[in-house]
Amino acid sequence: MNKLRIGMIGYKFMGKAHSNAYRSLPMFFPGAVKPEMSVLCGRNGEAVRKAAEQLGWRESVTDWKELVARNDIDLIDINAPSDAHKEIALAAAKAGKHIFCEKPLALTLSDSREMLQAAEDAGVRHMVGFNYRFSPAVRLAKKLVQSGRLGKIYHFRAWFLQDWILDPEFPLVWRLQKDIAGSGSHGDLGAHLIDLAHYLVGDIHEVIGMSETFIKERPLAEETTGLSATGGKGKDAPKGEVTVDDATLFLARFAGGALGSFEATRFAAGHRSTNAFEINGSLGSVRFDFERMNELEVYFTSDDEDVQGFRRVLATDPAHEYSDAWWPPGHTIGFEHTFIHEVLELTNAIAEGRQPVPNFRDGVKCQAVLEAVERSVNERRWVTLAEM
Amino acid sequence: MNKLRIGMIGYKFMGKAHSNAYRSLPMFFPGAVKPEMSVLCGRNGEAVRKAAEQLGWRESVTDWKELVARNDIDLIDINAPSDAHKEIALAAAKAGKHIFCEKPLALTLSDSREMLQAAEDAGVRHMVGFNYRFSPAVRLAKKLVQSGRLGKIYHFRAWFLQDWILDPEFPLVWRLQKDIAGSGSHGDLGAHLIDLAHYLVGDIHEVIGMSETFIKERPLAEETTGLSATGGKGKDAPKGEVTVDDATLFLARFAGGALGSFEATRFAAGHRSTNAFEINGSLGSVRFDFERMNELEVYFTSDDEDVQGFRRVLATDPAHEYSDAWWPPGHTIGFEHTFIHEVLELTNAIAEGRQPVPNFRDGVKCQAVLEAVERSVNERRWVTLAEM
Amino acid sequence: MNKLRIGMIGYKFMGKAHSNAYRSLPMFFPGAVKPEMSVLCGRNGEAVRKAAEQLGWRESVTDWKELVARNDIDLIDINAPSDAHKEIALAAAKAGKHIFCEKPLALTLSDSREMLQAAEDAGVRHMVGFNYRFSPAVRLAKKLVQSGRLGKIYHFRAWFLQDWILDPEFPLVWRLQKDIAGSGSHGDLGAHLIDLAHYLVGDIHEVIGMSETFIKERPLAEETTGLSATGGKGKDAPKGEVTVDDATLFLARFAGGALGSFEATRFAAGHRSTNAFEINGSLGSVRFDFERMNELEVYFTSDDEDVQGFRRVLATDPAHEYSDAWWPPGHTIGFEHTFIHEVLELTNAIAEGRQPVPNFRDGVKCQAVLEAVERSVNERRWVTLAEM
Amino acid sequence: MNKLRIGMIGYKFMGKAHSNAYRSLPMFFPGAVKPEMSVLCGRNGEAVRKAAEQLGWRESVTDWKELVARNDIDLIDINAPSDAHKEIALAAAKAGKHIFCEKPLALTLSDSREMLQAAEDAGVRHMVGFNYRFSPAVRLAKKLVQSGRLGKIYHFRAWFLQDWILDPEFPLVWRLQKDIAGSGSHGDLGAHLIDLAHYLVGDIHEVIGMSETFIKERPLAEETTGLSATGGKGKDAPKGEVTVDDATLFLARFAGGALGSFEATRFAAGHRSTNAFEINGSLGSVRFDFERMNELEVYFTSDDEDVQGFRRVLATDPAHEYSDAWWPPGHTIGFEHTFIHEVLELTNAIAEGRQPVPNFRDGVKCQAVLEAVERSVNERRWVTLAEM
Repeated sequence: MNKLRIGMIGYKFMGKAHSNAYRSLPMFFPGAVKPEMSVLCGRNGEAVRKAAEQLGWRESVTDWKELVARNDIDLIDINAPSDAHKEIALAAAKAGKHIFCEKPLALTLSDSREMLQAAEDAGVRHMVGFNYRFSPAVRLAKKLVQSGRLGKIYHFRAWFLQDWILDPEFPLVWRLQKDIAGSGSHGDLGAHLIDLAHYLVGDIHEVIGMSETFIKERPLAEETTGLSATGGKGKDAPKGEVTVDDATLFLARFAGGALGSFEATRFAAGHRSTNAFEINGSLGSVRFDFERMNELEVYFTSDDEDVQGFRRVLATDPAHEYSDAWWPPGHTIGFEHTFIHEVLELTNAIAEGRQPVPNFRDGVKCQAVLEAVERSVNERRWVTLAEM
Repeated sequence: MNKLRIGMIGYKFMGKAHSNAYRSLPMFFPGAVKPEMSVLCGRNGEAVRKAAEQLGWRESVTDWKELVARNDIDLIDINAPSDAHKEIALAAAKAGKHIFCEKPLALTLSDSREMLQAAEDAGVRHMVGFNYRFSPAVRLAKKLVQSGRLGKIYHFRAWFLQDWILDPEFPLVWRLQKDIAGSGSHGDLGAHLIDLAHYLVGDIHEVIGMSETFIKERPLAEETTGLSATGGKGKDAPKGEVTVDDATLFLARFAGGALGSFEATRFAAGHRSTNAFEINGSLGSVRFDFERMNELEVYFTSDDEDVQGFRRVLATDPAHEYSDAWWPPGHTIGFEHTFIHEVLELTNAIAEGRQPVPNFRDGVKCQAVLEAVERSVNERRWVTLAEM
Repeated sequence: MNKLRIGMIGYKFMGKAHSNAYRSLPMFFPGAVKPEMSVLCGRNGEAVRKAAEQLGWRESVTDWKELVARNDIDLIDINAPSDAHKEIALAAAKAGKHIFCEKPLALTLSDSREMLQAAEDAGVRHMVGFNYRFSPAVRLAKKLVQSGRLGKIYHFRAWFLQDWILDPEFPLVWRLQKDIAGSGSHGDLGAHLIDLAHYLVGDIHEVIGMSETFIKERPLAEETTGLSATGGKGKDAPKGEVTVDDATLFLARFAGGALGSFEATRFAAGHRSTNAFEINGSLGSVRFDFERMNELEVYFTSDDEDVQGFRRVLATDPAHEYSDAWWPPGHTIGFEHTFIHEVLELTNAIAEGRQPVPNFRDGVKCQAVLEAVERSVNERRWVTLAEM
Repeated sequence: MNKLRIGMIGYKFMGKAHSNAYRSLPMFFPGAVKPEMSVLCGRNGEAVRKAAEQLGWRESVTDWKELVARNDIDLIDINAPSDAHKEIALAAAKAGKHIFCEKPLALTLSDSREMLQAAEDAGVRHMVGFNYRFSPAVRLAKKLVQSGRLGKIYHFRAWFLQDWILDPEFPLVWRLQKDIAGSGSHGDLGAHLIDLAHYLVGDIHEVIGMSETFIKERPLAEETTGLSATGGKGKDAPKGEVTVDDATLFLARFAGGALGSFEATRFAAGHRSTNAFEINGSLGSVRFDFERMNELEVYFTSDDEDVQGFRRVLATDPAHEYSDAWWPPGHTIGFEHTFIHEVLELTNAIAEGRQPVPNFRDGVKCQAVLEAVERSVNERRWVTLAEM
């Protein structure tokens, strides 16, 4: 196989990131299977046609069911709003298509399990869009943990802090509505932290959380599907109820004994998108912040005693994963590159006849933690993952 | 009153810090009441005599009861190990002495309440040693919160991370023994975070915590009272059980609606003493890390939209509390200065006929949260402060 | 005009960056003229054919003279080694082609002037590749200077620090040979600093410099044209003379009265590519480091006196140039994006019938400073730009 | 000898720092000779009496000549304004007193040489107050250089940036008058950089500099001797000429082959007191900034290739010089501590019968560079130290 014909559903924020990834892969990773940007699908015919042209898709359609059924498509890329993931994925699996689905996999754990089952039954490849795993600095963190260079892991703490809805007049966009988005900061931001925890530290045993919606009503958005909708008609605009969490925090015990602390919020003034974690082990520590995504801070207890300290490692050296494809050391990459690396894994896995990582299993695992946290919030008690 | 005759019990880490504070006050704050370093008390006569000479105390004694009873002493400064605080404080109050007690006030909430009651009944001044309140950068944070410049507070997150017992061969010093120390990282480090939370954000409504002792047995220490004891006789040394927590984390809801996250650990490789917090409000945020204690990072939502970002404010300008006493802007101060400012508050309060802040009430409030967290750990449930 | 047919000469480091820029422009700046990636030119037919395929060029050729003469090409993009710039540019101008030339424009000032003259005589558009101007954070710095928000400028200091040839066994690649590269760190790195100084502060009046070649002989490279050539045959490999500077520093007085300090070196251990500057004005300061290219640190004297400090501004907000084209606030971009913005200026200028900025005039100005510094080094005296 | 009877002349900024050092030494370095704070000398009898009381001096006098002549004084500490250094030092030497003199040693090189000669002829101990050498982090830098762990040194770059006279209405205090202060930022700030260069890298071979007075006239100060004088009578106040430099930069070649870059300015908005340097060697680099004086950033080329980066070393560990005397790791010290360490060296040297380091030789060496730079500015040419 040296081509992968793609049909993609959705073309907003994630659709643009995916399109760029498909388009860039052959230039920077010439050894990879070449993604064919075949068909883009969206509900509004005129808008999707225009998007297809801009983003580089050969064709556009408005009916995803038709797309899923086509014979000239190998993979369905789902980045529609979260409430549409399940139905599309089930149909794609049934049609024997490989599936690349944005996170969160589904609105509920049971839905996500159904999706995994369907994909496995159909024998297709499936991937879930936890793109942050694909930052070179995160790969380095993984390498240090996995190789034992940090020793036994004692602590994992992580924050995903944003501030884009701090203004009470920010409108009620779809991401603030439970029936479409599933949850708020928890599913949107916390999901990434949970996946990084799974990737870097391992399974979580139990959790207890706390959640809050600080602003309970907001002006109705004129256009309720975009991240950047600029809102209602001022102070007198009709308001609607915010049905998702503005912030969710939880404590966790990992199966391996480490203690975890997680926080996701959209109310952290000054944080545009601080997606950060720290791991402390018996032999060292690492720190990461996506706002400085090319850097990993690394500490080793074995350093000479007069020069112990966190090192600021710029993960752009030849020793760092993916760096060969890019620029000389010290020349950084950005947010969108995580998607190019993600698509590299996707195409490599398909070419090699294996499941990509992270796949729907990881999506399900993440969903289980998300839902365990929600249950712990509702029932005000520790919830073990075994209960889920 | 222009003199304050002090009798101090204990002369290790805190005793040195207090001695330096008393000694330095008149030079840097010439308007303050002059502390007289009258009597130093310790169990070992030879050692305390030597310490008194080094630290600048006029006299040394070995019996604290005798000291407390003397007529030529106005204030008893207690920085003996935590298990001795209560008995001394009760005696000092009974003797009509003002009391300056290191934190934690006592080993239990009920003990600390008894201490407060005794001090109030005796009509003496009482202070508790939460020194971090007295960093100029923390004062600035307080000023910003109190004046409303950060708006409504949504988040408080704080960490006190150390790594001095990361090595499993580090010996079983007194700080690792529950009967002497009361608790481990929770009471030692977490107590400071809780006090800062009270100071900066306000009362806590409810908590839920998680605690762990990673290394359950350690070599017996030859000398078990010092922070820096260098341990047993190697790998074959007899071992004893660690009876305190190595790490304790908890979530909290503040009475005012803010969400809190707290972590205290001695197992964070690379962190010698990271005592850090961040506050997010509706109009801005502040960040502090005691390893860079002269700095406060400050963010305002009202900044011009093209230049929004956290400012690194060096709290050494004339506009910052205490700065007049020290050096020109940009010339920093250190850990010990927090104690000088603390003693300034102590002497000023006594001179002005008011209680110092923080006082035993604050010590009790802190103890209540510490114990609520412990109960929440033991009973695996949320505990409200009203229960305590 | 809505297409721009490009013939590009050279396809290594810069060729890849340019190719990516042409390819990405339409997706992220759909309003811009679409660059047609028509013909790629290189000396080795097989290699250039392969590169064309990977980088997305329709056709490949080996004779640049033939390319320049073609009727179906609108613009010649020159990123061949520096010694070839002039001949190609003159031919391109003569053929009426627009020209986009990598920096340094030429090996000498007089050559660069000849190129400018030729381009102006031919009436074509010309641009020089000072890509760092196109970082959003640098644009913000420019905006702050230009609008007067920093006041009168007193200081400009800049460093371009690298460490890739620190190892004495690193081979004698073309960049270390004067006849091909023109100069070493001075022309390669210092040129960027000089251009930023011109862009941000203005004309330079006089300079005095200091230059050194720390390692005077190096193993001959097997392949002497690549940045990443991995060298000779070990310690016994035949050696050749390094004929360029390893480091060049100079002081400058700007025409407007500011004082400048410049340093370019490839011997700064730990600096992969620290391209940094700071500007101090009467009303504020800015700081930039390309290793954290999304950030600009900004200080204003007008800030409230208790919260004065450098702000870390992440130039990814809607208020920042280019940000609309990219990702939500807090989602960073990388090195290659500077080229996309550069190509945006190139295509916009051509469409609007004006010269792009920076153009050959800026290239000449930069070359004049480079050469003034060299003269000042050779003659051990201050050299005014008026002499050049 | 176990006492050192001190007579100190001057009691403003430096006098306070010295007083605190003498007073603190016995508490923190009990093994050192105890300084006796015998006599404080100042011109205004009432003021010096009050200062003596506040700062802890036993006695005060107004005539320094009388003080120098006394038999009960072992050491004269000179921190009067720079123009008085020479006369006092010569008299003190003649009287057989040890001398501790603040920097700059004198207003001219020849004066400083005379002072050295006098001290050597008299056989007394002499020290000059380059206090920044005594930061633990700077000691660590020295250790790394001296032990060869940084390899051959290629680069030294240093800045001392302040902003306290940025406002044109700031008055004409004594530090802005050549006849009293000798020079401006050059002698005040640059002198420290030069001494650090000597200490860390070695002798300087030649220099070339550039100097500027941005604000040429300022309101006359009512009180012209203090750093913090708050100025004249507004915009209509009579003005006087600023006769020192606001900023001086210079390039240097070290005798050992390293290249140096130095900048001292009082016009760097946002920099209260950034006293920073970086050293790049063949095996590593170090970076220091006095605003974060407890930290040294350290890089080694020998680190594993995937974790290379600058380490933030907090110089508060047992492995760091002076740390035993202070607090546990992670508990920082401040500006004034450099003076305590300085006085430790002073008393140790006297007790051990050797010259302290840095002494008048270092003061002369610094003065020679200062004056070579001034000559290079005036004559617009490189000046070698051999000429001086």
